This record gives sequence, C-alpha cells and structure tokens, in this order.
Amino acid sequence: MRTRTQSNDHSTSGAQIEQPDWHRLLICWEDGRFETDLDPSDISEFIKRKDHLVWLDIQAPRDEDIALLRKEFEFHPLAIEDATRHRERPKVDSYDGYYFLIFYAITYNEDKNRLQAELMSLFVGANFLVSVHQGPIEAIDNTIKRWQQNEEQFGRDVGVLLYELLDAIVDDYFPVIDQLAERVEDIEEQIFERFRNDALQDVFGLKRDLLNVRRIVAPERDVLNILIRREVPIFERNTILYLQDVYDHIVRITDSIDTYRDLLSSALDAFLSVQSNRLNQILKVLTIASIVLMTDALIAGIYGMNFEYMPILHSPYGFAISIALMVALSLGLIAFFRWRKWL
Amino acid sequence: MRTRTQSNDHSTSGAQIEQPDWHRLLICWEDGRFETDLDPSDISEFIKRKDHLVWLDIQAPRDEDIALLRKEFEFHPLAIEDATRHRERPKVDSYDGYYFLIFYAITYNEDKNRLQAELMSLFVGANFLVSVHQGPIEAIDNTIKRWQQNEEQFGRDVGVLLYELLDAIVDDYFPVIDQLAERVEDIEEQIFERFRNDALQDVFGLKRDLLNVRRIVAPERDVLNILIRREVPIFERNTILYLQDVYDHIVRITDSIDTYRDLLSSALDAFLSVQSNRLNQILKVLTIASIVLMTDALIAGIYGMNFEYMPILHSPYGFAISIALMVALSLGLIAFFRWRKWL
Amino acid sequence: MRTRTQSNDHSTSGAQIEQPDWHRLLICWEDGRFETDLDPSDISEFIKRKDHLVWLDIQAPRDEDIALLRKEFEFHPLAIEDATRHRERPKVDSYDGYYFLIFYAITYNEDKNRLQAELMSLFVGANFLVSVHQGPIEAIDNTIKRWQQNEEQFGRDVGVLLYELLDAIVDDYFPVIDQLAERVEDIEEQIFERFRNDALQDVFGLKRDLLNVRRIVAPERDVLNILIRREVPIFERNTILYLQDVYDHIVRITDSIDTYRDLLSSALDAFLSVQSNRLNQILKVLTIASIVLMTDALIAGIYGMNFEYMPILHSPYGFAISIALMVALSLGLIAFFRWRKWL
Amino acid sequence: MRTRTQSNDHSTSGAQIEQPDWHRLLICWEDGRFETDLDPSDISEFIKRKDHLVWLDIQAPRDEDIALLRKEFEFHPLAIEDATRHRERPKVDSYDGYYFLIFYAITYNEDKNRLQAELMSLFVGANFLVSVHQGPIEAIDNTIKRWQQNEEQFGRDVGVLLYELLDAIVDDYFPVIDQLAERVEDIEEQIFERFRNDALQDVFGLKRDLLNVRRIVAPERDVLNILIRREVPIFERNTILYLQDVYDHIVRITDSIDTYRDLLSSALDAFLSVQSNRLNQILKVLTIASIVLMTDALIAGIYGMNFEYMPILHSPYGFAISIALMVALSLGLIAFFRWRKWL
Amino acid sequence: MRTRTQSNDHSTSGAQIEQPDWHRLLICWEDGRFETDLDPSDISEFIKRKDHLVWLDIQAPRDEDIALLRKEFEFHPLAIEDATRHRERPKVDSYDGYYFLIFYAITYNEDKNRLQAELMSLFVGANFLVSVHQGPIEAIDNTIKRWQQNEEQFGRDVGVLLYELLDAIVDDYFPVIDQLAERVEDIEEQIFERFRNDALQDVFGLKRDLLNVRRIVAPERDVLNILIRREVPIFERNTILYLQDVYDHIVRITDSIDTYRDLLSSALDAFLSVQSNRLNQILKVLTIASIVLMTDALIAGIYGMNFEYMPILHSPYGFAISIALMVALSLGLIAFFRWRKWL
Repeated sequence: MRTRTQSNDHSTSGAQIEQPDWHRLLICWEDGRFETDLDPSDISEFIKRKDHLVWLDIQAPRDEDIALLRKEFEFHPLAIEDATRHRERPKVDSYDGYYFLIFYAITYNEDKNRLQAELMSLFVGANFLVSVHQGPIEAIDNTIKRWQQNEEQFGRDVGVLLYELLDAIVDDYFPVIDQLAERVEDIEEQIFERFRNDALQDVFGLKRDLLNVRRIVAPERDVLNILIRREVPIFERNTILYLQDVYDHIVRITDSIDTYRDLLSSALDAFLSVQSNRLNQILKVLTIASIVLMTDALIAGIYGMNFEYMPILHSPYGFAISIALMVALSLGLIAFFRWRKWL
Repeated sequence: MRTRTQSNDHSTSGAQIEQPDWHRLLICWEDGRFETDLDPSDISEFIKRKDHLVWLDIQAPRDEDIALLRKEFEFHPLAIEDATRHRERPKVDSYDGYYFLIFYAITYNEDKNRLQAELMSLFVGANFLVSVHQGPIEAIDNTIKRWQQNEEQFGRDVGVLLYELLDAIVDDYFPVIDQLAERVEDIEEQIFERFRNDALQDVFGLKRDLLNVRRIVAPERDVLNILIRREVPIFERNTILYLQDVYDHIVRITDSIDTYRDLLSSALDAFLSVQSNRLNQILKVLTIASIVLMTDALIAGIYGMNFEYMPILHSPYGFAISIALMVALSLGLIAFFRWRKWL
Repeated sequence: MRTRTQSNDHSTSGAQIEQPDWHRLLICWEDGRFETDLDPSDISEFIKRKDHLVWLDIQAPRDEDIALLRKEFEFHPLAIEDATRHRERPKVDSYDGYYFLIFYAITYNEDKNRLQAELMSLFVGANFLVSVHQGPIEAIDNTIKRWQQNEEQFGRDVGVLLYELLDAIVDDYFPVIDQLAERVEDIEEQIFERFRNDALQDVFGLKRDLLNVRRIVAPERDVLNILIRREVPIFERNTILYLQDVYDHIVRITDSIDTYRDLLSSALDAFLSVQSNRLNQILKVLTIASIVLMTDALIAGIYGMNFEYMPILHSPYGFAISIALMVALSLGLIAFFRWRKWL
Repeated sequence: MRTRTQSNDHSTSGAQIEQPDWHRLLICWEDGRFETDLDPSDISEFIKRKDHLVWLDIQAPRDEDIALLRKEFEFHPLAIEDATRHRERPKVDSYDGYYFLIFYAITYNEDKNRLQAELMSLFVGANFLVSVHQGPIEAIDNTIKRWQQNEEQFGRDVGVLLYELLDAIVDDYFPVIDQLAERVEDIEEQIFERFRNDALQDVFGLKRDLLNVRRIVAPERDVLNILIRREVPIFERNTILYLQDVYDHIVRITDSIDTYRDLLSSALDAFLSVQSNRLNQILKVLTIASIVLMTDALIAGIYGMNFEYMPILHSPYGFAISIALMVALSLGLIAFFRWRKWL
Repeated sequence: MRTRTQSNDHSTSGAQIEQPDWHRLLICWEDGRFETDLDPSDISEFIKRKDHLVWLDIQAPRDEDIALLRKEFEFHPLAIEDATRHRERPKVDSYDGYYFLIFYAITYNEDKNRLQAELMSLFVGANFLVSVHQGPIEAIDNTIKRWQQNEEQFGRDVGVLLYELLDAIVDDYFPVIDQLAERVEDIEEQIFERFRNDALQDVFGLKRDLLNVRRIVAPERDVLNILIRREVPIFERNTILYLQDVYDHIVRITDSIDTYRDLLSSALDAFLSVQSNRLNQILKVLTIASIVLMTDALIAGIYGMNFEYMPILHSPYGFAISIALMVALSLGLIAFFRWRKWL
C-alpha cells in the first residue's frame, strides 16, 4: 500500500533522491473490520455513521488533500490554514464537533547531532482522527500498526486512539531528554575532570536546545491540562485518566528541563571560574619565575659593576661563589613561595 | 481620492519636503455598495442605520477631525484624549456602545537600522470602525483595499474588519521578529566564529529593542485575551475564533521574544568570557616570552660579571658558546611550556 | 486667607526662615456657590446635607486638626493614626461611609538632585474629601483652584474631585520618570561613548531611586485596581471610567520603571565589561612594551659580556650596528604584534 | 507574683545563673475586675462563662503546663505538640472552637550583634488567649500590663487582645528592619566612600539575616491575610479592621526587606567591581613603573656594552649625560602615560 | 515471618551476598485482632468487610505480586504500571474507590556520601493500604511495627495509617535537610575562614543535591495540598488535621531548601570573589617585588656602565655605597607601598 520503509530516514532539510515525499493513508474501522482501500470522497459518508472510526493520515499535504479536509470534513478554514503552516505553537482549539490540536514529535538526529521537531496537526472528532504533517513521524505509523493489531484493546473510542498517539509521541521525548542530560553531565566532566577550553560553545548550544525543547513542551503541557480539566464531550471519562497519564509524563519532562537549565547555568559559572582560575594560576607561576630570574640577574648585575674595589672579584672562586649564590637564592625563593602556599 | 503613495515612506522623525501629512478617509458600505465620497457630517446618520458599515480612517488628526469624533460619534472625552496621545500603552476600554483599543504597528526601518512603532487608536462599534494614527500605517491601507476588493468575504460584521486589520498588523510583526532573531544569530557568530570586540554595544542595542517590542506586544496579548474571553456583544461568535487566531500568533511572538532574551543574556555571558579569555591568552603568551627573554638576559648578565677568573671567558669560542646556550635554553623553555600545555 | 505662595518651595528637610509651616483650608460647595470662610466646627452639619460637597485640606496637622477629624467627621482612630504617620505604604482601606487612601506625590528636586516623596492621606466620603499631608503638595493646590474655576465641569460628584486630584498627582510622576530615563541614557553614554570610570556610583544611585519609585507606584496601582474593580457605592459609574484612565497611566509608569531597571542592569554588566576591557587593553600594551624593552636589553646585555673574542666589538661601527639592531628588532616586534592583532 | 524583672535579659543560648527560667501567669477578667491569683484547675470553669476573658501565658513550659493545656482547655494533641517545638513555621490552624497561631518575636541583640527570633504559640478562643513561648517576650509582658491598665479600651473582645499583642510584636520588627537598613547603608559606604576589602563577609552575613527575617515575616503575612480574609467567627467585624492594620505593617516590612535584598545584591556587584578595579589600577601603575625602570635599565645596559668605540664614553660628562637621559626619558614616559590617561 | 533484620542495610546499588531481596507482608486488623498469616488470595474477601483494615506491603514486586494487585484489588492498569516504574514524579491520582499516591523516602547514605531517594507507591482505599517499593524503606517497617503495638491509638481509620506513614517519611527528611544545611555552612567556612581552592566542586555537588531534593519535595507538597483541600471521602475530618501537619512540615522543608539555594548562590559569588582576590593579591605582591628588584638592577646597571669618569668608581667604599643605596631604595619603596596601602 505504501512504500514508507524507505522514507523513514527522510528529513526536512537536505536533498534526498527518489523518495516518495508524500503519502495519504485512510483507515476505516467498522466493528472489528478494517478497510484501507477506500475512496476518500466517501469519508463524509463514513463519519456520519457513529459506529465507524476513521483515521486519515496525510504526510506532506498536497492541494487535493487540503481539498479533502475542506469538502469531506468541512473543517474551519482557520484550522486548515494552521494545519499547513510549519511554525505554529502547540495548542488546542475547540470547534463545533471537533478539536484541533498542534503537537510536535521531537527526535534526536545522531548523524547531524541536532534536535529535529516535526509539527503534527490533529483534528479529533467524535469518530474520526485526522493527522497532518510534513515529514514522516514514526509514532504515527507505529500507533496505526498497533491499532490494526490490537483492535479489541483500543475499542471504539477516538479518545483511546488519541491517547495512544500522544503517549507514543511523548514517550519519544524521553530519549531526547536523556541525551540532553548526558550532554549536561558531559559538560560537567569537561569542566571538573578534564578541562576543555571550548566547553563554552557546548554550553551555549545545549542551552539553545533546552530552550527550544521547553518552548515546545511547556505549551503542550497546557494543551493536555486543558483536555483533562475541561469537560470534553467527545471523550469518555476513562480516557481522561489516560490523558492524565500523558500529562504526568510531560510535567516530569518540563521539570527535568528546568533542572537541567539550572544545572547548566551553574556549570557556566563553574566553567568561567575554573577557566579564569587556571589562567591566573599559570600567570602566578610565571610571575614567580620572573621574580627568581630577576633576583639572579641582580646578582649578576652587581658583579658586573665596574667598581675598582669589590669583594672576591679577583678570587679564583669568585665566579663559582656568585653562581652558587644565585642557585641558593633561587631555591630559597622557591621554598619561600611554597611555604606561603603561593606555588 | 488620496495621494497616499508618495507619503508611504514618511516617518515620524526628520523633515521631508512637500508631502501631504494628513488624510482622512471615510468609507460607507451598504449591502454591496461602497461610497467614499461622503460628507463627514452625515456620519451620525449612517451609523444609525444598522445595515451600514462605516470605516473612518484619520491620519495625523487635526482639530476638525477631533471635532468629528466628538460630534458625529459622541465618543467619550477620555477616549478621544487617549487617541491623540503618542505614548499610550496597548489596552482595550469598554464604553457604552463601543470599544476603544490601542495597538501598535511595528516596522523595521532598514535605512536607519531602527525599529519604529506607530500608535493606532481604534474605536469599534456595532457597525463602525474608526482608526486614528499619526504616521501612515500600511496594514490599514491594505486592509481597506482588501475590503473593497473582497466585499463578500468580509460580510457585514465589524468583527471581521477588526480581525483583518489586527491580523495584518500582527503579521507585520513576524519580519521584525525574524530580523531580531537574525541579529541574535549575528551576535553569536561575532562571538564564536569571528570575534569582534565591540559586539557588546550590539548586545545592548538588541536588548533594548527586545525590551521595547516586548513592552508593546505583552499588553497587546492581554488586549486580545480580554476580547476573546469576555463576552463582547458586538462581535459574532465566529469572529471570536478569528481573534483567537491573532491571539495565538501574538503568544508565539512573545514566546520568541522571551527565548531571544534568554539567548541574548547567555550570549553576553559568552562574550565576556571569550573576551577575557582572549586577553588572558595574550597576556600568558607575553609573560612566557618575558620569561624566555629574562633567562637569556641572565646568561648575558652572568658573562658580564667582572670576575677575574671565569670559564671560557678567554676562549675564542666563548661568545658562540654563550649565544648557543641562550638559544638552547630558549628552545628548552618553549618546549617545556608546550609540554605543560601553557602555550 | 492663606499665605501659600511663599511656602511653595518649602521642603521637609533643611531649615527655612519665616515660612508659615501650617495651613488649613476648608471649602464647601453648595450648588454653584463656594464658601471658604467657614467655622470648622460646622463641618458635621455640612456633611449631613447631601447636596453639599466639602473639601478639607490640612498641611502639617496640629493637634486641633486631628481633633477636627475625630469630632466632626468621626473617622476611625486607626485611619487618623495612619494619616499622621510618615512612612505608610500606599493603600486603600474601606470604613463605614468613607474610604481611607494613602498616596504619594513624587517630585524631583533639581537643586538637591534628589527625589522627594510626600505622603498624602485622603478620606473620601459620599460628599466630602479630606486631604492630610506634611509638606505642601502642588497638585492639591492646583486641583482646588481648578475646582473653584471650573465648577460646572466637576459637578457634584466627589469621585470627580478624587479623579482630578489623583490624575494631577500621577501626571506629576511623568517628569520624574523622564528624568530617570534621561539618567539611564546618560549612564549608557558614559559607558559607550565617553567612558567615565565612576559611572558605577551613578548606576547604584539610579537603581536606588528606581526601587524607591517602584515601591510607591506598585501598591498605588493596586489601590486604583481595587477602586475600579470593587463596587464602590460612593462613586458613580462614570467616575470609574476616569479612575481607569489614572490606572492605565500608573500601569504605564510601572512598565517603564521595569524596563529601565532591566536596561540598568544590562548597563551595569556593560560597564563592568568595558571597564575591565579597558584596563586589560592597557595592561596588554604595557606588557608588549616590556617585551620590546627586554629584547633590546638582551642585545645590550650580550654586548656587555666580557668575552675576549666577540664579533664587531672592536669595529668602529660596532656601537651603531648594535643600536641599529635594537631599533630593527623593536620595529619588527611591533609589526609582528600588529599582524597578530594584539596591538 | 512573678519575679520577671530579673529574667528579662535571659536568652535562649548561654548559661545564666540563678534565674527563674519559668513562669506561668493566669489573668481572668470579669466585667471590670481582674483576678490573677487563680487556681489553674478552675480554667475549664472560667472559659465556660462567656462574660469572662482569660489570658494564660506560659514561659518555658513544663510538663504540668502541658497537662493544663490538655486537661483544662482540651486542645488538640497536634496543636499542643506544635506549641512545644522550636522551629515551626508561622501559620494559623483552625480547630473546633479556637485558632492556633505561630508567630515570632524578633529582637536585635546588640551585645552579640545577632538577630534573635523567639517562637510564640497562641491559642485564640472566643474568650481566652493562651500564649506559650520559651524565652521571655517583652511584647507579651507589655500587652498584659497595658490590658490591666486600660481595661475599658480593650473591651471584652479577645480579638482586641490579639490585635494589641500582634501589633506590639510587629512594631518591634521596625527597629530590626532599621538596623538592617543601617547595615545596608554601612556596606554602601564601605564600598564607595572608604573602601574596605572585607566588606564581602558583611554582605554575606547581612544577606543571611535578611533571608532569615524574610522567612519569618512572609508566612506571618499569609497568617494575617487568612485572618482578615476568612470569616473568623470569634472576632467582631471591628477587630478585622485592626488586624488589617497589622497586616499593612507587615506588608510594608516585607516590601522593605525585598528592597534591601535588591540593594544588597547591587552592592555586591558594586563591591566586586570596585575591588577588582582597585587591584587593576594598582597593577597598572606598577606595570607603568616597570616600563620606566626597564627603559632606564636599557640606557644603562647600552652604556655597559663593551664596544671599543662608543660616543661620549670617554667624555668627563658622559656619566652625567647618561643619567640625565634616564631622568628625561622617565619624565617623558610619565607625561606620555598621563596624556593617554593611563595614569 | 520475614527475615527483615538482615536486609535493613540493603541498598539499590552494589552487590550484597545472600540477602532476601524480596518480601511481602500482609496484615489484616479486625477489631483488635491482627492476623498476618493470611492467604493473599483472600484479600478480595477481607476488603469487602468494612470493619477490616488491610495493609499489604510489597518490596521488589514480582510478577505474582503484580497479579495480586490486579486480581484481588482490581486496580486500574495505569496505576499498576506507575507503581512498578522507578522514575515517576510524586503525585496523587483519584480512581474509583481508592487513591494512588507516589512519594519518596530520602535518606543520606554516609558511606557513599550520597542522597538516596526510594520511590514508594501507595494505594489508599476506604479500608486498605497497599505500599509498593523496590528497596527497603525503614519508615514503612517502623509504622507497621507501631501500628501493631499501639493499635488503639491508630483506630480503624485508614487515614491515620496514611498519616503515620507520611509523617514518618517526612520526619526522615529533616536529617537530610540538616545535612545539607551543614554542607552549606561547611562551604561558607571553606570560603571565609580557611580558604579551599576546590570548594567550587562542592558548591556544584550541593546545588545538584538541593535541586534533586526540591524536585521531589515540591510536588509532594502539592500532593498533600490536594489531599487536605479536596474533599476526600475516604478520610475522616480529623485525619485532614493530621495531614495538614505533614503539609506544614513539608512547606517548612521547601522553605529551607529555597533559603539554602539562595545562600549557596551567594556563597558561589563570594567564593569567586575571594578566589580572584587572593590571586590578585599575590600578583600584586609579586609585581611590587619585581619593581624593587628592577630598581636595584638599575643601580647595578648604572654602575656597570663603561664611562671613563664616574663618581666613586675608584673609591674603596664604592661597592659598599652602591649596595647600601640598593638596600635603602628597596626599603624606601616597600615603605612607600605600605603607606599607599598597596601592600
């Protein structure tokens, strides 16, 4: 039906060759029977029958897909407009007969060492779910697969579908958070164990990533809070319990992010202090070395004076005595600085 | 009708020659028919008929315009007073039969490299919209033009007019935000890639701009929140959905501004650290150089001593040996500092 | 009746000669007729008649004035006690039949370069206003004068009196805020354009002033918020609109103060950075100079060695060659440091 | 009855000799007649009669006192347990028939230069007040004395007793705050007028004191807010007005503390800047001195070279000329650095 | 019944030998009679009889224990899933007929110098309490022991059981907080009394611990707030009073943590300042030493010049005079620097 497997490593930036950038998947469930080979123009018929449950997933929507949303579902133009944008803020809008949600799938792309956030628009009605997104989102594919395999567990409630999808999305946040936590620990190690002078840029990049994740997760928490607080007529009471669970996870994630931001800013302070301390220590040692050298040079200078009468000038051991004096003074100074704990 | 095109590059500061500083535009819509050639003194008649929709736009109001507001619309003296000031805070005041709003159009003037904020006062009644402002505001002109061209889309609802206007105003914020984002990135590049010593003043200027934009946008968010939360009898239920959309945009903008402020303050920390680090590195290298020079000078000093008996003093290779000793010591010291990672 | 004009430049601190430190002014309005030559012991009679409007202004209250408040108005002992203190926080207390307000008049004393805050206690009843303060407050005098001259505009509503007074008080804040803004700009200029090493103390003083003004203005905003939100039976609905206007102004003032505090703390960061940068630049130049001098001294030291056989020692051009060598090395080093961008 | 006078300078820490560490005072008022010589076991009888007003004050409670609370008043075990602890947070708990409050008396002990906070537990019933504390609290003694002397002013309302006590407690905070304010000013002076290098430890100690006072005062503000907001059936409406007054004072105190914390953190920034600036200034002057010395040494080094032919070497004025050259160069350099504003 | 004594020092990390890692304890109370030797499969029978009170404690749950929860108690799958995870956030979820709570036991492991947090899941029904945890939790064991010994004090209320357990858990937080307070004081001492250069890493570790404790305690405060605010039908009114007490303690703990965080960040500032100050002091002394040495070297250099005519060159006291001059100049410079307060 779809050639999705080879498009899994597709990403929004960069040019790939020969990958189907688009797909549309329509599943209709009718009391234990799944149909996937449907004519999209029949959607309006299906969603009228309350015992059907329809999921339409659109990736990289084309004009004909948008037309479907307008004609078959009769969604509000504002919601459709939002669904095709790329930089919307997570939110939930309540329309007559359906909810419009914006959520983000966040993945950590190890190759590019970058976080990627993929916007996902959801239309949730009493017996339909429409998901619209640009790039592929694994959580959607997996949820659909699990629905088809565990039909009886999902029941006929659209709320369970939504829960399974959001739960999969939010569960994918945890590896991202873990990776951020690892980078915080890495930075601490770079500061305290093996000092690296360019940890600063890492701190800055990590701070940017934390800010970006927080900017997505914080409003998503609000979205879930609205869904579980407000009376949502299209969900059953039991579904709210499940969404509460997703909410708890997302609260834990924001908690973690705030903790890491706090730790990161301490790490920055620590880095600056350790860095300036190391430089100052070196300067101190060098300055002490210059004191020792100057003292020796003073001895040499004194014996370089042209007075006619100077002690030991004509003694055969004069030179050796002066060199010994230099060595003795140098050692004495070093001992003194050690004793003063300056070295 | 108006000679507006040549007044488009007009700005509040600086002297231009021969530009019409003033205009007044009155449009009355009556079921599909626009009239623009109207006697202002008939306004009070028009707004009595509920099937009329009137938009009065006043730029750089003169005394006779203020008189119009007082006599034809019978606006409250306080609202009129606020409409003619230049430094009001965005707000919405509810009067009997109309709302008074203050909003700002923000543009980025590339020539002067400065943000410009133009105050716009709006009186919104059941079937009229009055906009008062000092300089020209493109969003107003464009919205009027679009109204005249897409009459059927706008309908007879003043709320749609208001939505179209505020949407145009807020859409114009995005390029301003993008320009601020660019400047943040520019500053980061100035810090990490090609260090510029005077990035500090840029940071300061950008911080000031972010604060100023935030000071306008944050209360505008409150204004929109009041409009969509409070029951506003002169808007239809559908209009609220549209205003919600403008609200979402402005929330996204304040989010972005807060993120950029956070990034900017990290950038400042990073700048100070990189700057002090660079200076300290130079000082370190210079101090090491002085250690090398002092060591060599000590050798010279020692052979400048006037002892009668000194080794190799009378050897023909004495000078060469001493110079070789200096070179060897210098290279040894440099190797030592390299090994200690001080260089 | 009063010799107020010569007491206008009176201030709470410092000794002035021969100025009437005290005045009491009692005005009673009775449908278009003002009476000022009244026996204070008749007040209790006047305020019983609802068509009278009484304003009693007391400066530097004496025991007999306090007795008036107690006997004629029968104010609560707590309110009277608060009215005679000097360090109360702005607030509004609701008593039976009247409100007790504390507000501050803030002026900028140019001679002493200091902000002065004068506490003003107000008792606001259905048909009376009592103002108590220590030093003279221009806004009170002006409001009374305007009341006597524009009687018809004020009407018989005590709320309008209160609005006119608070509006005059708050309007006087703007020059103070402008002066603070000017000082912030002055400090920025001191940092970026012509660096002044003692800008730090200015920053500190300005911060103190901003904190003090904020400490007065923030609770005043709350006072006005209470007055316009809570149902205040002694004001007419229209009066609330006017108080809303004062509220808007005071919100704008607190906004400005917060912005200036933000800018000031950036300015402090900038100052510290610029200051340390300038010092480090100087140290860098001096260190480079010492490197050059040490190099030259090394040459001199080498030719000061006492070896029997040294090149060009006996040449007539030896000295000139060595000096030329020094000059060449110095220029070379300077060129090298320039090329490395260290100078 | 009590030997309290000699126990007034008692404090919780340190060993004193022969001071009655304990006292219990029971006062019963019955329509104008005070009785102090009562059998504690009759308390349960007294508090049944609604026209009696009982105050029981216990200092350094012993087991028999605790038994009194349990048997005569039948207080809840939790409240009794809290009343005998030393580190509780200020709070108000509502039990059946009485309120349990925790408040702190704060005094500044000049001898030890330390703030002392004495926990005071209060049980407030319809016609009784029980105060429990470890060390002596002057405000309690004074309030009891004033009650006995101004019986008619207090009336039969337990709320007035509570107000008088809390007012006395909170009034004692003001000298503490003034002392903190003085220390903030002292620190500013130490920074700007006569720099003291160890001001840092003072800043730290003051910050700790401010935090500790805030930690007591902020929850006390909440306690009072609860008492005046919530309908408290055992107080008369008039009493609320009085408690509002105490609330206002405590709000003013927290305001002040926050201001001083703000000023203190600016003071810390200022201190660090001034300190580092002074050190850098010294380093700059010393570095300039070394440049001057090195220049002179170079001259000496040049004339110390062993070339056969050197100018003025054999002139009788050679030495004087060289010294003059050194002096001239030194003065020239100093003038140059002055001109560059480096000195 | 259980071999718990030897498993008390068990901890989650590290390998111990031969310790029963698992236990399950089932206690049923029936009007004064305890039964512990019960068949778990009878639980569903017991909890039907309202005069029974059942506590099931499970450590390191195995599959058969999970099955018990599912079959006998019929808990919701989501709650059971949460109960077997290790990183949940403290929370309270309300299900039909029971509450699900997550709390943490925090202990300070002195051997490893580390805080350990042990997750504890609680199911609280009208007449049962189920506790699930991985490692051993002393507070649970102690509470069960106290229940069995003081049966009459606990009564038949499950709320009292919960209170006793949470109180024991929260009481165990205080030593942890005290230990954190001690470390803060220790760090202050390391900064001000005996400076230790590596206090920074301690600051960082302590900050991390404070953040981690706060992350547990803050949501626990919310949990208790929900329990005492919301009407919880399975608790008696009296129980709420007790939970209020636990709530007060946990509020005090969060207060303390916030204070320590504040003190810690001041301590960090102080540390950085003291550290940089010490380094700068050393640099200053060293620079002054170099000035003295350079001055002496200049004297030596001057007398090393090769002029034919120089004063005292041929005097027998010349050398002594020059050395005396050096000593005098050195002492003079040191006196000068002392007088300028630079030393």
